[in-house]
Amino acid sequence: MWKLESSSLDVNVLPVEESLYALANGYLGIRGCFEEGYPQEYTSIRGTYINGFYDLIEAKYSEKLFGFPEVQEKMPNLMDAQTMEIYLDGERVSLFNGCHTDYKRALYFDKGYAERSFVYRTQKGKTATVRFRRMVSFQVKELLLIEAEVQYDGEIRIRSIVDGNVSNYTDDFDPRVGEHAQLLDWKSSSLVDEAYMVLKARTKKLDFEVCCGVYHRCSKPEISVVIGGEHEPRMTAEYATSGNITLTKYAAYCDSRCQQEPVEHRVLKIIKEQSYISLEDHLTDQRKYLENFWKHSDIQIFGDDLIQQGVRFSLFQLLQSAGKDGLTNIAAKGLTGEGYEGHYFWDTEIYILPFFQLTQPQIAEKLLTYRHSILDQARNEARTLGHRRGVKYPWRTIAGRECSTFFPAGSAQYHINGDVAYGFIQHYLQHKNLDFICHYGAEVVFETARTWLEIGHFSNGKFMIHSVTGPDEYTCIVNNNYYTNVMARYNMEWAVKLYHILKEERPEALKGIIQRIQMQESEIDEMISAYKNMYLPYDEQRKIHKQDDTFLDKALWDFEGTPEDKYPLLLHYHPLTIYRYQVIKQADTVLAHFLLEDDLEDEIIRNTFDYYEKVTTHDSSLSSCIYGIMASRCGYCEKAYDYFMETVRLDLDNTHGNTKDGLHVANLGGTALSVIFGFAGYRIKDTGISLRPWCPENWSGYEFKLFYRGRQLRVNVTDHLEIELLEGERLEIKVYDKQYGLDSLLKIPLEGMKRND
Amino acid sequence: MWKLESSSLDVNVLPVEESLYALANGYLGIRGCFEEGYPQEYTSIRGTYINGFYDLIEAKYSEKLFGFPEVQEKMPNLMDAQTMEIYLDGERVSLFNGCHTDYKRALYFDKGYAERSFVYRTQKGKTATVRFRRMVSFQVKELLLIEAEVQYDGEIRIRSIVDGNVSNYTDDFDPRVGEHAQLLDWKSSSLVDEAYMVLKARTKKLDFEVCCGVYHRCSKPEISVVIGGEHEPRMTAEYATSGNITLTKYAAYCDSRCQQEPVEHRVLKIIKEQSYISLEDHLTDQRKYLENFWKHSDIQIFGDDLIQQGVRFSLFQLLQSAGKDGLTNIAAKGLTGEGYEGHYFWDTEIYILPFFQLTQPQIAEKLLTYRHSILDQARNEARTLGHRRGVKYPWRTIAGRECSTFFPAGSAQYHINGDVAYGFIQHYLQHKNLDFICHYGAEVVFETARTWLEIGHFSNGKFMIHSVTGPDEYTCIVNNNYYTNVMARYNMEWAVKLYHILKEERPEALKGIIQRIQMQESEIDEMISAYKNMYLPYDEQRKIHKQDDTFLDKALWDFEGTPEDKYPLLLHYHPLTIYRYQVIKQADTVLAHFLLEDDLEDEIIRNTFDYYEKVTTHDSSLSSCIYGIMASRCGYCEKAYDYFMETVRLDLDNTHGNTKDGLHVANLGGTALSVIFGFAGYRIKDTGISLRPWCPENWSGYEFKLFYRGRQLRVNVTDHLEIELLEGERLEIKVYDKQYGLDSLLKIPLEGMKRND
Repeated sequence: MWKLESSSLDVNVLPVEESLYALANGYLGIRGCFEEGYPQEYTSIRGTYINGFYDLIEAKYSEKLFGFPEVQEKMPNLMDAQTMEIYLDGERVSLFNGCHTDYKRALYFDKGYAERSFVYRTQKGKTATVRFRRMVSFQVKELLLIEAEVQYDGEIRIRSIVDGNVSNYTDDFDPRVGEHAQLLDWKSSSLVDEAYMVLKARTKKLDFEVCCGVYHRCSKPEISVVIGGEHEPRMTAEYATSGNITLTKYAAYCDSRCQQEPVEHRVLKIIKEQSYISLEDHLTDQRKYLENFWKHSDIQIFGDDLIQQGVRFSLFQLLQSAGKDGLTNIAAKGLTGEGYEGHYFWDTEIYILPFFQLTQPQIAEKLLTYRHSILDQARNEARTLGHRRGVKYPWRTIAGRECSTFFPAGSAQYHINGDVAYGFIQHYLQHKNLDFICHYGAEVVFETARTWLEIGHFSNGKFMIHSVTGPDEYTCIVNNNYYTNVMARYNMEWAVKLYHILKEERPEALKGIIQRIQMQESEIDEMISAYKNMYLPYDEQRKIHKQDDTFLDKALWDFEGTPEDKYPLLLHYHPLTIYRYQVIKQADTVLAHFLLEDDLEDEIIRNTFDYYEKVTTHDSSLSSCIYGIMASRCGYCEKAYDYFMETVRLDLDNTHGNTKDGLHVANLGGTALSVIFGFAGYRIKDTGISLRPWCPENWSGYEFKLFYRGRQLRVNVTDHLEIELLEGERLEIKVYDKQYGLDSLLKIPLEGMKRND
Repeated sequence: MWKLESSSLDVNVLPVEESLYALANGYLGIRGCFEEGYPQEYTSIRGTYINGFYDLIEAKYSEKLFGFPEVQEKMPNLMDAQTMEIYLDGERVSLFNGCHTDYKRALYFDKGYAERSFVYRTQKGKTATVRFRRMVSFQVKELLLIEAEVQYDGEIRIRSIVDGNVSNYTDDFDPRVGEHAQLLDWKSSSLVDEAYMVLKARTKKLDFEVCCGVYHRCSKPEISVVIGGEHEPRMTAEYATSGNITLTKYAAYCDSRCQQEPVEHRVLKIIKEQSYISLEDHLTDQRKYLENFWKHSDIQIFGDDLIQQGVRFSLFQLLQSAGKDGLTNIAAKGLTGEGYEGHYFWDTEIYILPFFQLTQPQIAEKLLTYRHSILDQARNEARTLGHRRGVKYPWRTIAGRECSTFFPAGSAQYHINGDVAYGFIQHYLQHKNLDFICHYGAEVVFETARTWLEIGHFSNGKFMIHSVTGPDEYTCIVNNNYYTNVMARYNMEWAVKLYHILKEERPEALKGIIQRIQMQESEIDEMISAYKNMYLPYDEQRKIHKQDDTFLDKALWDFEGTPEDKYPLLLHYHPLTIYRYQVIKQADTVLAHFLLEDDLEDEIIRNTFDYYEKVTTHDSSLSSCIYGIMASRCGYCEKAYDYFMETVRLDLDNTHGNTKDGLHVANLGGTALSVIFGFAGYRIKDTGISLRPWCPENWSGYEFKLFYRGRQLRVNVTDHLEIELLEGERLEIKVYDKQYGLDSLLKIPLEGMKRND
């Protein structure tokens, strides 16, 4: 199953499919809208986006307190090059007005393009075959190609449009969808060399430029061409012929945010170069790129095609979403929609990065490099928050500014600092790339570690962290959130470790970093004292970790009295009401047990899972994957599988109801993690890697590969575990708490999971 | 000292004096601006306001969650009738361009008017004597009178203006000052009967009308009059003469919010009736009204004129601020400025009401009646917050809507419910007016009591209240705020008491109330169980009440490292930073000990005072009076006096730097409370009243009167305590914990305070 496909048309599902069938390459993204258009009254979010391209909008408050962000960054919807209207003997083709048969669409994960075709019957009873194919190139990141192929015995006209009349989508009734529709001012439209349509726009506030150039290649060179709309924000190229036609549209998008060369120069250069290459040749290149991706990154599921499809869909979309230039990251919705305004969150490090770390370490490093690139903004934000040293990573951002305007569920989530540090540390554990630590990691880990010293304090000999919000946004501004405290402990412990490692192995590099951030030797001592005495709230009676100092003292939410249509709670209850109860939006303490399980007794892990599971709504899409992984850890096989099913189908079945605003990319990452960290029980620690595999009953097995400290391994789980060393030196590996030496191939029988269902 | 006066002109102090010299009667208010105007570039807030008159403005959020108010109520600045420009031989009189001598201004607390006079020297060296007098009538609430008297040997022209080109004051840099300047649309200006200038405007959103009518009475009937500006938002009447002139401007303001009769009809009727009465006669009526007020409400300070002035200023401004119609209340700034947008807060019940309760019970009842009038809105808000029963009083409001947009320091302050109930209960204790309880009090006390059952829960047998904010806004959204919990306990205890009292004495009335609010008998049992098991956080080691469950676990604020110019903290630190420390904005637990000291050991009261005093910034103007009162309670005489000095001089010396935005009316109430509840140690409980008087060393004594259950008492404290029964039956009274019978006069030696300084 290397594709997503559909052969039914449902008006209500169209906006969801726009997200599912979106194409992107980590730089340029385009939603899966219909080239020939929809009737005016249909809901459609016709979107084209560039990762990291943004403008500023005013942050609005009726009561603004000190340090609240004045502005927010927001990703604009760009000029639209999707439209290719088709007229048959003058009749406009539409799937919603006329008659059609044989409709189908597909997105190919292995080939990297999307296809849509149908047979159209005109009002006069003649039929036409229409097929669109489109791709966003992984090899030339600015490039989008769309091909329209029409077979018809009569007059065919194709009007191919590039439109600068664009705006962002807004929804007054959903706080998760942003405001501010108009971000771009159209600047110019011109026809270059009588062939290239070039549209330029600028962002209203920051004056960033974005340019789109379009060229057409037609299967019938002799047909008449009309190109209109110069000096207007909408340009049209019209191709008219009789009989069959194939029209290929080459569109290139460039922006000025990180490049000096004028955008129209670059656009023209790219479009001129690339339009000499046929779509078929571009598709060949695309397939090669993806072959290489899948070679390392595929997760195979044996015996369940639907799950296999869902998993590959997830991995493909992760690849499509990831910024690969070190200056951009992965937005909460990737490049598939406008939800969360194109902002990056902690999602990257905790939910997505591990997949790339294991299978595409060079992409992982680029994502981490981005975090290093915004250190200065994070320093500024820390000063705004009153900290004399350290950094505060923005809860949500594109270019580094803190963009959360509701701080209890935004800036207060200091754990983002720990999450970013965790990403660097895990990457180091996985690959032991000390150069990368020297250049990027150490500074981030040191700076984030210092911040804990600023916000924490000692009380009765224990290090406490007050007034923060953990991952669970249904419980805000608390003291000693367990998740935050363990992440802080890990952050500081590793700051100290890296300090000593560098002192030993790269003393000059360390000196440079320390000088740059003006860190004192005494701060290392402070960190040691803080992490060694970190307070971790624990309930003796229940033998579980407390989510925070007072979570367990609250009343239980009345789940029985809450009808289905009141979920997600945040859309139906005042935050104060929600805060008052033991009810959580997403994995919090359970997530902490996943990320940092060291030294924990199984009993505590299981008790904690049992307790919080009962009060978790999974209203966030960041929850079910973690509960699934930890269900595996606890031996709850049925649960693990159920949670995995929720995870893998979340967008495909639109279970959260808002896939139209873009895919839940963290959850896509969670799908990959569910197999590797969940079913296979993979963990990486300072002491090495370990597995604790089991196989869901419905499957005959699964397989994935991973890179580890200069090696590549293949892990295959069927009725036994097979680990193959594909490349690199012998290693030690722990399976079910027992140590093995892996020279080339290990076969280990699966331990019957200690089933706890 | 029956007046406030000034004889110096300081440009920077002018906006402050506009607040200090404001005139009002609880309905209409006008700031003390100069009739002849200022140079354009001067900061002046030229304001005229009607208590309770408002429009709606959009509440702004970048991230809006469920239940956040969509709109806010805001008090508009009304058409300006203050202006009377004076020209002497064509030269415009201004205190800032020309030369002047003998400048002075005064506000008379006993006569109820303001006066301003100076000698002006023209550029040609001629001199004129100018005097303005103005009053806002207590007898005719719509009426403002301004008289200009000019003595000059030459041509005098007076241009008297009424101006509809008005807007509200805004300040981007201070969150305590609101936004939205344009609230009114000018509707019409007309000249009625060739004498009455009538301007009408409407609020933009709600279409409430407001009308101002102006008539002039001139000492020289024969002089020329030009009236211009019909059909424009600015009308001018010009009077020109030579020699002396006295021009009296009669202005009436009416609004349509609570009255059906067209506003212009009413304005004309009032202005026609009232302009037959001379200013002198109006002033006589005004004095009579105030004589009666002072007869019952004066607080005399013997031996310190400056303090006497400050106290009387406070009482006079309280009278000016209080709505007296049962549909309006007391805004945080009274009618003296636009700070907090004309909103009513808990300030009324806790800081101001006691003064009226003791000395003007009929005004107190009107203020409480207002709370009953907005019960329906409070019910709606409770539903929004997810409560099936009960009410939630708005944290800030004019007509009843919740207008706080930052809920952690707004809606989360559930204690407002307890505060309102406390007001009714205290009133009942003071006057035992069961009719008032039947009509208004019981329903409010029952409904607020029910709300605690909704937000509280039992844990380990104790009743807990989570996710609320106490009075201290530097600590938000906490569990078991001591203040909130004791107020909730009192609220429920009294709901049960009143239930039984009414069941006994007014069974029919009770039945009606219970039916109306659909309260079950079982709820009374719930309340009993809740208040009897109320959890009150207590620190065994320090022997103090904890402000909330975790306040004492926090790090101490670094007061030594905080420079003076970083106060108030809220303007210089992010709320998250502030929340993280033991630092409080205003009396919280200490306030609870003032309001409900029953059964508390002196030691706990004193320890609690000592502890919290060290971490209190008094950044709120609601703090120093309470600390002063409780310093008296603890025997800290010096401190009590110092806090009192801060209280009584707060606005007069502009110590908070924002008196320009209006007087701190709660603090004015606190001034009265400081003498009666602080120095005299007055308390009212179910068991009766008590005193614990002492006299500051700097004074020779003080005296006040109070009504108590059909009696009037005079309390005089010099070197001994004298209590006189002016009216009514014998009573028992407790002094220094000893019971006395008061038939007509009691003289009791002052116990040397157990000085703890």
